[in-house]
Order: sequence, then structure tokens, then C-alpha cells
Amino acid sequence: MDAGTATHVVPAGHARALRIARGAEFRVVNPHGGQVVDAWAYIAADNGEFLSMEHSRLHLGRLVPRVGDALVSNRRRPLLTLVADTSGGRHDTLLAACDRWRYALLGAPPGHRNCADNLAQALRAAGVAGSGTPAPFNLFECVDMDSSGKVEIVASTCPPGGYVTLRAELDLVVVLSACPQDLAPTNGVGRAPRDIELVAPVDARVFG
Amino acid sequence: MDAGTATHVVPAGHARALRIARGAEFRVVNPHGGQVVDAWAYIAADNGEFLSMEHSRLHLGRLVPRVGDALVSNRRRPLLTLVADTSGGRHDTLLAACDRWRYALLGAPPGHRNCADNLAQALRAAGVAGSGTPAPFNLFECVDMDSSGKVEIVASTCPPGGYVTLRAELDLVVVLSACPQDLAPTNGVGRAPRDIELVAPVDARVFG
Repeated sequence: MDAGTATHVVPAGHARALRIARGAEFRVVNPHGGQVVDAWAYIAADNGEFLSMEHSRLHLGRLVPRVGDALVSNRRRPLLTLVADTSGGRHDTLLAACDRWRYALLGAPPGHRNCADNLAQALRAAGVAGSGTPAPFNLFECVDMDSSGKVEIVASTCPPGGYVTLRAELDLVVVLSACPQDLAPTNGVGRAPRDIELVAPVDARVFG
Repeated sequence: MDAGTATHVVPAGHARALRIARGAEFRVVNPHGGQVVDAWAYIAADNGEFLSMEHSRLHLGRLVPRVGDALVSNRRRPLLTLVADTSGGRHDTLLAACDRWRYALLGAPPGHRNCADNLAQALRAAGVAGSGTPAPFNLFECVDMDSSGKVEIVASTCPPGGYVTLRAELDLVVVLSACPQDLAPTNGVGRAPRDIELVAPVDARVFG
């Protein structure tokens, strides 16, 4: 990344929105390790165009991007390129964000924080009109699969200090949610959700 | 399926919408074999709740449903149960519907029919306000994967006469698009898109 960055905390269980210019890079750091971050991106000028996992899987010819790969929008334009990855490279594109209905099924009382509502809050803070909950790019999330098609969430294996660096390919609003999941193995069994760090250009605005 | 059904043609490259009551079943038949059908479902009373592949994969613990499994909505309620399947059981939940941007990238002139616009047309015909293009349940679509995470569309292996029977778990609007893809192997290399048959209860209304 270029010089001239600022480090922002995404508090455990909360989200932040980032307005970032085409060509700029940002880094998502997992200071304590094993914390999943749900990520979304919208074209700054048009929230009807956004990062799409179902379009990205075809574009990549893969389930998960590798360094050098770009994720694309629902109009098949590259939005985010994975520039660096010290996390071990495990991320997820298959599973929905946690939401109020997920926690209800898990037996939590109403009001549990969740990534879907975090997205809506962060978009409002950034002045973007909401438009549903696209499937997220689940940074650092580990989902085991086998040849029978079984899909299972296991604890994130991202080491402390592991990070990804992403480049914005257009002017974007990016939302990052430090996933509040504490009733499934996502963020580690028996571990409370933890803060995430966002390292962004000094002129990129952060909201939420 | 119960007695008292009507058979409707979904013409090659086109879509139909079906209003169907909770508890009723419908059958999607592949008379010529090897034809993919993009499927969506919406709660009849609320188009903000719809079939979601990213929620269904977690609910199923699998990429693709088997007979007896239910696909769920973006609010995690069961919407469609797979009651019978003589297609060989290969379907896809990973890939986006084909759309105008896909055909532009494939070099087609503007105006190529596509499943995303088919969905919008069918919803309009059924009197449902549009709301984007959820990831479809791609009936009969074959996507090869390997242990490295590679994802590749191959020709559908559904035999002539193969079908699936689905049960509506709530009052639904279902949309079925006989995929117009003729520039990728989806519907068979060198084969033109083909008609699909929809067998539905006589009191279920079909639009489009």
C-alpha cells in the first residue's frame, strides 16, 4: 500500500463503511486471529450495482479468489482485486450473512447483533440507500466441503496479524462487519467476537 | 402429485410465472433432456422474501438439495421441498442467472434473451413488483468442481423426460426460465435451447 494511511478499528460485532477511490487499496487486519469479516461493496454512484458472489464464482472459475483475482459486480464488472493475503487464503463466498432469523433459530433472544443489520446501519451512516442484503464476501471464514457436497462452518484459521489487501477497481462504498457470531464455530469455539483493523488511505472516509 | 393437473409449455429461452398455494406440488419436466431451468420463488404476499441460495446452502449443510430437502428464503423459512427427482440429481446453487452483461462478454449482439430479464418479465406478468435478481436455483445445471475449488459449467446430463417435483411450503410465486444460453456448454454443446414442461395443479395460475 502507498504511504499516507490511517488505521481504523471495526469494533467486535459492529461494522464500518469506507468510501474509497478507484485504484486505492485498503487492508483488513485480523489482529487477534480467527475473526471473520463480512464484506460488501457498492458502486459509489449506483447502489444497484454491487459485489456479487454468484457472479464472481463464474468470473473466477473458482469458489474463492486467490491473490491477483478480482471479484465482480452483479453487472460483471471487476470491483475488488485481492492484492495480498497473509491469512492462509481461506475465505468463503457460499454463505449468507448472519441475520436476526439466524439467531432466532440458534435460540438467541431478540436483539442479537448481526451482520445483515450491521450492513444496513453502515450504509445509512455512509448516506447510501439500503437495498437488501447481497451475499457477502466472508473474509477469513472457513467452510469445509467434501466430495459429496457437504458444507460446514468451522473455526477460522486466520493467524493473529493475518490480513488481506484489496484494491478498489471503481469508486466504491465498502462495508466491513466484524461478525458477531458467538453461537456457531465461525469465530472460534468459545471465543468472543474480536475487533478488526481497517488500514485505509488518509483521504478515504470511514462511517459508522 | 395429486390428480387434477394441467401441463404448460415454458418455451425455449422464455419464462413463466406460477402462482401456487401452500402444500401444492408442481413438476418441471425436461422433455428433450439437457435443458437447464433457472428457478426463483417469492412469497406471494411479500416480494421482499424470496428463495435464497446462500441461506439454503447453510440450512441444507450441502451445496445442492436431495429428495426430501427444503430450500429456504432469505428469512430462513422453508419455501420449496424437493419431493421427487428423476434427473440424476445434478442441480446448481452457485452461479448467477445469465444476463445482458454475460452475453456482452460472450460477444453476442445486444438483445440476446437472458434469464435475468426473463425473471423480470415473468414477475411483471404475474403482477409482482420487481426487486433485483436473486441467485437462482439452477435446475438440471451441471457444474463440475474439484478439490482446488475450481468451478466449471459443463453440459447438463438430465435425460429426456427427467423431472423434478417441488412442493410449495407457503403461498408462492415461482418463476421458471428455460435458459437461452447457447454460447456456453450449459444446455449442451451445439444444441439450441429447448422447451420445458410445467405440470401444475389446475387451479394454479400461470403467467407470461
